[in-house]
Amino acid sequence: MKIIIAKNSGFCFGVRRAIDLALSFSKKVGTVYTIGPIIHNPQVVKKLAGEDIKVADHACDIRSSNNVVIRAHGIPKKTMELLKKRKMRILDATCPYVTRSKKYAEELSKEGYRVVILGNPKHPEIKYISSYIPGNKILLKSESDVKKIGFSKKLGIITQTTQSPENFIKIASTLLNYSNEFKVFNTICPDAINRQKEAQRLAKKSDLILIIGGKNSANTVRLAAISKKIQPRTYHIEEAKELEKRWFKNVNTVGIVTGASTPQWIIEDVVNKVKDIT
Amino acid sequence: MKIIIAKNSGFCFGVRRAIDLALSFSKKVGTVYTIGPIIHNPQVVKKLAGEDIKVADHACDIRSSNNVVIRAHGIPKKTMELLKKRKMRILDATCPYVTRSKKYAEELSKEGYRVVILGNPKHPEIKYISSYIPGNKILLKSESDVKKIGFSKKLGIITQTTQSPENFIKIASTLLNYSNEFKVFNTICPDAINRQKEAQRLAKKSDLILIIGGKNSANTVRLAAISKKIQPRTYHIEEAKELEKRWFKNVNTVGIVTGASTPQWIIEDVVNKVKDIT
Repeated sequence: MKIIIAKNSGFCFGVRRAIDLALSFSKKVGTVYTIGPIIHNPQVVKKLAGEDIKVADHACDIRSSNNVVIRAHGIPKKTMELLKKRKMRILDATCPYVTRSKKYAEELSKEGYRVVILGNPKHPEIKYISSYIPGNKILLKSESDVKKIGFSKKLGIITQTTQSPENFIKIASTLLNYSNEFKVFNTICPDAINRQKEAQRLAKKSDLILIIGGKNSANTVRLAAISKKIQPRTYHIEEAKELEKRWFKNVNTVGIVTGASTPQWIIEDVVNKVKDIT
Repeated sequence: MKIIIAKNSGFCFGVRRAIDLALSFSKKVGTVYTIGPIIHNPQVVKKLAGEDIKVADHACDIRSSNNVVIRAHGIPKKTMELLKKRKMRILDATCPYVTRSKKYAEELSKEGYRVVILGNPKHPEIKYISSYIPGNKILLKSESDVKKIGFSKKLGIITQTTQSPENFIKIASTLLNYSNEFKVFNTICPDAINRQKEAQRLAKKSDLILIIGGKNSANTVRLAAISKKIQPRTYHIEEAKELEKRWFKNVNTVGIVTGASTPQWIIEDVVNKVKDIT
């Protein structure tokens, strides 16, 4: 059986950077805390706990004497203000692509645009960006939500970094009916786009696709959805132990696509397990 | 037979303003010249010639001692500079909506956007706006032209004032694939939109549509195209004398839609002639 691994696999730049920053910070100062998981991969987060990088649910769960690393998705403005007020030692590991989106959103707001953010309002990235936009903003999860918004004098549009370009263009196009003046930033992460393209390419040439990554990871969930549209035999797993022998019946080619926060060792585990059971 | 006249008929604000300005100027100073027709209605232009408002093809066809009225569509930057250099007395009757588009285009260019102008490159309005944009701009007539342009860092988009909103959104949506940063102004004239809506409404409820206006008038040609899609029995005429009795066979309801530069007296002529021949 042939196994093809997607070209863009393993950690993306932002995830690698966040983990490296947290590790070197913890080496220097001892135990550090993130508010919410540093990245959306439970296995990596568990491993990092052994390296003195712990997860707190809320800022108030951490003592003022503790050290804090800001997760790759960023944290809401109020939480950051609270940390600063408590004079805690902070290292910001927010992904530069996410920070850039937040800067664009702030710029739009300052220039008088009603800010539209395309993405999942419950995702920490969107919570972070949205928290920096005062007043009348619009959080749009899907095209059907567009109808709910009225006509605005000026609309400024940004999108979650893990959005698919097709969705972004579809929703932004519909929004063109709702104002006469727009400023639009396509803030999809280039790495996310490359992974999506690879998922499409492999889904077309494989009998089965394994998407490896956190079930809570937006970019991984997106990859699974994109792959499933082309190859219905798409399975989203976090670890090798989830693999089932029966999935591989009549399969000649397996495509392996990984989320931006999936570590190399999980990919290797999966490849070995696939070889074992088939 | 029932005759329904579109709600928005006769001169639009910009045409009325240009003619009023030219008339009061010529009353004050005598003969005045426009470079190209002041508006796109040959019958009105002919009538105005009798009121000392003459048409010159080029700036060099006018003597320095002559007085100039700038047509409703505007004139290219170089022509304006030539007139000013020759210290001619100039009255600018460019439509404020067209001037506004030009200002937006200049703003986009200054802000570093590659400027895209959706419209007919041969139309004087587009020639006027385009002449104020130095360097690398894109003139797009239709959606199929979009493929010719490459990826740009920043795209700024405006449109001819007589564009249809559907076309504008269609082309602007396609353009969303060609950059990651956009500033978009929907510069379609509100009066043009209202006339287009009326054309659609009347085309749906009439057995025959008469579109009255200059054959060289972009907004009138647009109205005829929109109406023809719904009611194939659509005739674009400039004057009553073009009407043919055979058009009205089995017609119970006639809808009359007029371009923005069609005068009231032509509309009345057409209505009377329709009544006469049917």
